[in-house]
Amino acid sequence: EDQLEKSYNDDVSDPYAWDPQRHPALVVNSLKPFNAEPPPEILTEDPITPNTFFFKRNHLPVPHVDPDSYKLEISGTGLPDTLTLTLDDLKTKFAKHTVTATLQCAGNRRSEMNKVKTVKGLEWGRGAISTARWGGVRLRDVLLHAGYKPDSCSLVQHVQFEGLDKDVTGTSYGASIPLHKALSEDGDVLLAYEMNGEVLPLDHGFPLRVVVPGVVGARNVKWLGKIILSAEESQSHWQQNDYKGFSPSVDWDTVDFSSAPAIQELPIQSAITEPEDGAILEKDSDMLTIKGYAWSGGGREVVRVDVSLDGGKTWCVAELRSAEGEEARPLGKAWAWKLWELSVPFPPDMNQLDIVCKAVDNSYNTQPDTVAPIWNLRGVLCNAWHRVRVTVTTH
Amino acid sequence: EDQLEKSYNDDVSDPYAWDPQRHPALVVNSLKPFNAEPPPEILTEDPITPNTFFFKRNHLPVPHVDPDSYKLEISGTGLPDTLTLTLDDLKTKFAKHTVTATLQCAGNRRSEMNKVKTVKGLEWGRGAISTARWGGVRLRDVLLHAGYKPDSCSLVQHVQFEGLDKDVTGTSYGASIPLHKALSEDGDVLLAYEMNGEVLPLDHGFPLRVVVPGVVGARNVKWLGKIILSAEESQSHWQQNDYKGFSPSVDWDTVDFSSAPAIQELPIQSAITEPEDGAILEKDSDMLTIKGYAWSGGGREVVRVDVSLDGGKTWCVAELRSAEGEEARPLGKAWAWKLWELSVPFPPDMNQLDIVCKAVDNSYNTQPDTVAPIWNLRGVLCNAWHRVRVTVTTH
Ligand SMILES: [Mo]
Ligand SMILES: [Mo]
Repeated sequence: EDQLEKSYNDDVSDPYAWDPQRHPALVVNSLKPFNAEPPPEILTEDPITPNTFFFKRNHLPVPHVDPDSYKLEISGTGLPDTLTLTLDDLKTKFAKHTVTATLQCAGNRRSEMNKVKTVKGLEWGRGAISTARWGGVRLRDVLLHAGYKPDSCSLVQHVQFEGLDKDVTGTSYGASIPLHKALSEDGDVLLAYEMNGEVLPLDHGFPLRVVVPGVVGARNVKWLGKIILSAEESQSHWQQNDYKGFSPSVDWDTVDFSSAPAIQELPIQSAITEPEDGAILEKDSDMLTIKGYAWSGGGREVVRVDVSLDGGKTWCVAELRSAEGEEARPLGKAWAWKLWELSVPFPPDMNQLDIVCKAVDNSYNTQPDTVAPIWNLRGVLCNAWHRVRVTVTTH
Repeated sequence: EDQLEKSYNDDVSDPYAWDPQRHPALVVNSLKPFNAEPPPEILTEDPITPNTFFFKRNHLPVPHVDPDSYKLEISGTGLPDTLTLTLDDLKTKFAKHTVTATLQCAGNRRSEMNKVKTVKGLEWGRGAISTARWGGVRLRDVLLHAGYKPDSCSLVQHVQFEGLDKDVTGTSYGASIPLHKALSEDGDVLLAYEMNGEVLPLDHGFPLRVVVPGVVGARNVKWLGKIILSAEESQSHWQQNDYKGFSPSVDWDTVDFSSAPAIQELPIQSAITEPEDGAILEKDSDMLTIKGYAWSGGGREVVRVDVSLDGGKTWCVAELRSAEGEEARPLGKAWAWKLWELSVPFPPDMNQLDIVCKAVDNSYNTQPDTVAPIWNLRGVLCNAWHRVRVTVTTH
């Protein structure tokens, strides 16, 4: 494919030689591995994020995978044998399904947590979240095809994934999800080979990735090489010693990673994409327009977004907008975010606005007011009210 | 049964004539209908609440039901016929199941919301929540026995319940839950005839009630008379025009009840049961002990409780305690609360403590910091950090 042509640089000793070209408008947090987010206002142009601008979160170099010789290996407890599938097998032996799902990095909005007290991790703004229509096969169908008999083997509790991306020691990226999520007809877990109707891009896991709707990005393993059924979670660094939440009182001297569950479903989240913090708005029209996104993990649907212009003293209810066809989702399967917008007259006699948003999902979970009490040493799970302060001027 | 003997007063013209005797230690919010909560410190003596002290939330008079002539009627869309079951049928034709589940009134902690701005509703403290082991039959089994074929009839989306309790116009209490919750093997919805190993008490729905684990108390219909499968939610006042959450900006002049979803799963919650707000603690020992409960709706498990002595600036992690046998729950089926306790040395040089608690569930949802931004006109869903202020004295 075309993307493969352009995908490598000339230095063959560089493990990142196969990393593709990226759009120059992306805000880069790290070049090797590549981590970048779109400018926030691009996120709220449409509920579906264009592939080019979908946030990129790579833990390791992009691996070079030849689609013709690519093989997916499925093995582990409860399976009669190791099953090997080619890309062609996946596309021809299984029904194709499409799921519209938002993915969010656990570290989205980490920069706000960093302002409270230094945390370890990439300095994400509010753009480490995006939404696509994923096309592929159901993980459930593949596991059943591989011979897994539901309820036959209570030893199997987790489905582990191994990427084809490797560090210098040869260790692959890895993660796992609960078997229940993988097997459930309502879980909608995909092995995706398409993204927004295009071939899955190199940065998003070409030729095959896992899409686990409602679950933190880190479990949506890209460049999928192996699926392993197991009694245990993935033993990878990213499952065991990373991507977990802790009390603000826990620091690097006291942290016990085994004391917290690996992040799977994410909590309710929202953020303002426009205006920018620090913007100077000219009151040339009478109306002020504020835009943003709102999403909740676990298939919980966003039912309301409240917006305040006075730092949270008074609130207005924003208009919500779903992707086309996603307006009426079955209960517990609202995998995609909603964009929101509020247009209100500029409040008279206020030249400083402290704009705040907070969302509510259909379990009536809400966002915490402030960042400090949810601060954690890895800077994950930052879902406090999002705030921007702007100045209003008149000619 | 014994409770029936003592259950009525002599005034037969009183619709509340069949209301039972209650324990004098209960804190009564309303006598007719009877609404009362236990003193908070009783809640944290044991993870299982004794029936006597389990909070009572009656919308209407306790109906007089003769268990020998009692009949449950199951009808509606997708069923070949109306099925009628006696109490004996329920006990002998279906497998008995036991589920340990916490029930919480949507109005728990309403009194805190009332302090922000007046709300309409009973003045609950933090005791409108309790936990019991419920014994009965699975609603799923009863619906299948009645002839419902899953996936046969996409018209059916809701299971409506009608109580035998009626108002003066003859209108029964009613509510509904999504069909998916009712039918799911993981939903654990019971028609319960036992509570903590005893015959279901009169105040808790004798002879039969619905127990919907993870879902607001209001859908756990007591004195169950009818089950109706339907394309629609219950049209009752309590489903349509009550038990919904709104923005703080919505008042009784602007409220549109159709704009918000009926509360089903409840958000993450925790509260301090000891010490009491305003208590004067003598620093006779070196240790300060703080107790409370924490629970989340939808089967999400409480994974951590943070406690602060300085109003939320610094935090300690509390010890968690589950009911016996409830320590290792399957994912998504943690129906019961956890009690928590923190014992710490009295902080030196502080004679005022601003004690705060907040809980985190396994979707990493957390409680909002303050009550005002979640204020709503009906005073439901009050789950902000719970605070008590105490004074410390030394001899
Ligand atoms: Mo991530
Ligand atoms: Mo309630």
